[in-house]
Amino acid sequence: MMGDAATATSSAPHVGRADADRTPDVIVVGAGVIGLSTAWRATLAGLDVTVIDPAPASGASGVAAGMLAPVTEVAYGEESLLRLNIAGARRWPDFTAELEAATGHDIGHQRDGTLLVAFDADDHAALRDLHGFQQHLGLEVDRRRSRECRAQEPMLSPRIRGGVFAPGDHHVDPRRTTAALAEACRARGVTTVAQPVERIDHDGERVLGVTTGDGATHTAPRVVLAAGVASGALHGLPASVAPPVRPVKGQILRLRSRDGTRLLSGAVRGIVQGRSIYLVPRRDDELVVGATQEELGHDRSVTAGGVRELLDAAVAIVPGVDELTLAETAAGLRPGTPDNHPLVGATDLDGLILATGHHRHGVLLAPITAEAVVACLLGETPPAEIEVADPRRSAVTDTGPRTSDPGRRVDDVRSAS
Amino acid sequence: MMGDAATATSSAPHVGRADADRTPDVIVVGAGVIGLSTAWRATLAGLDVTVIDPAPASGASGVAAGMLAPVTEVAYGEESLLRLNIAGARRWPDFTAELEAATGHDIGHQRDGTLLVAFDADDHAALRDLHGFQQHLGLEVDRRRSRECRAQEPMLSPRIRGGVFAPGDHHVDPRRTTAALAEACRARGVTTVAQPVERIDHDGERVLGVTTGDGATHTAPRVVLAAGVASGALHGLPASVAPPVRPVKGQILRLRSRDGTRLLSGAVRGIVQGRSIYLVPRRDDELVVGATQEELGHDRSVTAGGVRELLDAAVAIVPGVDELTLAETAAGLRPGTPDNHPLVGATDLDGLILATGHHRHGVLLAPITAEAVVACLLGETPPAEIEVADPRRSAVTDTGPRTSDPGRRVDDVRSAS
Repeated sequence: MMGDAATATSSAPHVGRADADRTPDVIVVGAGVIGLSTAWRATLAGLDVTVIDPAPASGASGVAAGMLAPVTEVAYGEESLLRLNIAGARRWPDFTAELEAATGHDIGHQRDGTLLVAFDADDHAALRDLHGFQQHLGLEVDRRRSRECRAQEPMLSPRIRGGVFAPGDHHVDPRRTTAALAEACRARGVTTVAQPVERIDHDGERVLGVTTGDGATHTAPRVVLAAGVASGALHGLPASVAPPVRPVKGQILRLRSRDGTRLLSGAVRGIVQGRSIYLVPRRDDELVVGATQEELGHDRSVTAGGVRELLDAAVAIVPGVDELTLAETAAGLRPGTPDNHPLVGATDLDGLILATGHHRHGVLLAPITAEAVVACLLGETPPAEIEVADPRRSAVTDTGPRTSDPGRRVDDVRSAS
Repeated sequence: MMGDAATATSSAPHVGRADADRTPDVIVVGAGVIGLSTAWRATLAGLDVTVIDPAPASGASGVAAGMLAPVTEVAYGEESLLRLNIAGARRWPDFTAELEAATGHDIGHQRDGTLLVAFDADDHAALRDLHGFQQHLGLEVDRRRSRECRAQEPMLSPRIRGGVFAPGDHHVDPRRTTAALAEACRARGVTTVAQPVERIDHDGERVLGVTTGDGATHTAPRVVLAAGVASGALHGLPASVAPPVRPVKGQILRLRSRDGTRLLSGAVRGIVQGRSIYLVPRRDDELVVGATQEELGHDRSVTAGGVRELLDAAVAIVPGVDELTLAETAAGLRPGTPDNHPLVGATDLDGLILATGHHRHGVLLAPITAEAVVACLLGETPPAEIEVADPRRSAVTDTGPRTSDPGRRVDDVRSAS
């Protein structure tokens, strides 16, 4: 493994992680689930890594529900993203096993499938269409009648019209996952700098390092930008390589039972009067409720309207939610992109690698993103499915109108126009 | 003033507040708005006071909205409570003036009246009946058409059917009030003991003091029991004098504007599909939302159902509430009594004075309660209106059926049965 020399000094760049002045092989900007996964996997590949983040795991990762659910989350027109998401999900079992073995942590990986239910007749019609689309794509998903849904989850409302079950859609606990990743990074000797990154330093052709909020410069030949929604706000980057991320706000609620009972045995998604929500039970009596609809916005405040919509929809499909304690409300800003695909890979600035723009799929795509970035760092071939996330694709580098471009490989109806 | 001697020693009971072993004139159990008001007023009457509470102002006082609103809160069958409430409200202007002068604090006393609006046709019918009852009682309250309500509060929904305006119904900020009272007590030399009271000590005929959770005994010839809902859970009291309080849960929300705008200029109450709610704007952009309906219960957890009902009702009459930030949810346990009247005055245990059972009216009734307790301590005549709160009244000491007793002076439809 590189950088493991006990004799390291500041005159020996690339080695000596105990020395504050040393030059690591790579700086990872951002200690969310993407940055920490990348840093951990990079150390396992023998690289010396520094992670810089003023508040590790405090961004969108801490607000995520942790769904590993490419099947029930599939959206019309996002077939290329679906392939990436499925490839991402396939990496999770090994990733979990290795992370739990390395740390002794339990990251709450639950593999009992996801039930998607429809509330009213219109929702049921939408669900039937979605199921047809899922079957057309060859996905593993089974229709369930209303009474079959309730046999599986007895606390579901008798009013629900029916559902589909995706046995391969799982979930992890993102807070446990980032905590385990931070521990794994520590154990592998990753250096952590608790500072905001002010600027990516470069000479116009290649990256030189970063400057942090305390004025310190940190040199490194490679910088991985994994700062989520903050990735677009860093100074110093040429416009051609600055990631076009925009904040997409998501609000979630954490509810708790007052008497230790669990309302749901597994994850339930719902289509409720046109809105999509999810209810994810954790092992410790917690039920996380969130919506897949999102709003643009730079503020992380939790609005009354957001809480109301989540609770109303959750109670519609699981009436017992009313009796739970509202333990926490939180909002996070996910890094969206113009075509809803992530930005993972090398840029035109030598040494600068992006690992951001994961939108709602940061947890799901963390292992494959880490794998792709490490391949990029080592000069190896990344997984084929990550190609749709190439930061140099025209859909994100073009400055003209995006939604009507017939030449785009991604025909996404939800793109920013 | 008693107890002001600089030469106090433990051999000189009733004097010397600097000595931990001294015997004060009175121990007040509980540092909520009732206990602190009583302690402050007692020191002004020349008494030496010790207040004991493990967590001052952490109970129902901190969750209250602070409505001083006997007119819009009047309930059928509670005429005797109304007289007490009106007498309580009349004491507030002087109480505020003296407290603010004594401390330099602003307790957020707003005197711009309260608007009570009806949401749908049924609510409007209920409001018309209530207005007739208010007029029958001779209360100052004016009908308002829907457009008049909206002229006064432009953010009200156009759907509201009409309202009534009570110019004399005001409000204070309970957190500011308890903070000012604590400061006023400190300035007057009140001793505070931050311990839970385990037991009221007595010899069967008269009170001797209290024992706290750390095992310490605190002697005093008089004990005022002002511990809110905890007043009923103290050990050592004979059943005949133990206050019959039961916890009545109330949930409130604190909302904040994201841009400094105020949705409401004054307090608004609403009848929304049969539910009563209130929206109280504070001077610092905060809007407090609560309900007058309550549930029995010993836990202080905030339920999803409680939050949902409050938000749904608030948004129904003020749609802009959806855009506010949900800053805090809280639940408090108010001390209810069998006949919904407080328990204020001497008991059959000599030296034990109750000042509890104020239900939703603890803030409103704090000044008159303090006045009555101090009169009791000094052997003077308390205000006539407090007589309905006599702890020795049959409605709370009888053990038989209460709601059907024709001899009761209080014919309260909401009594516990």
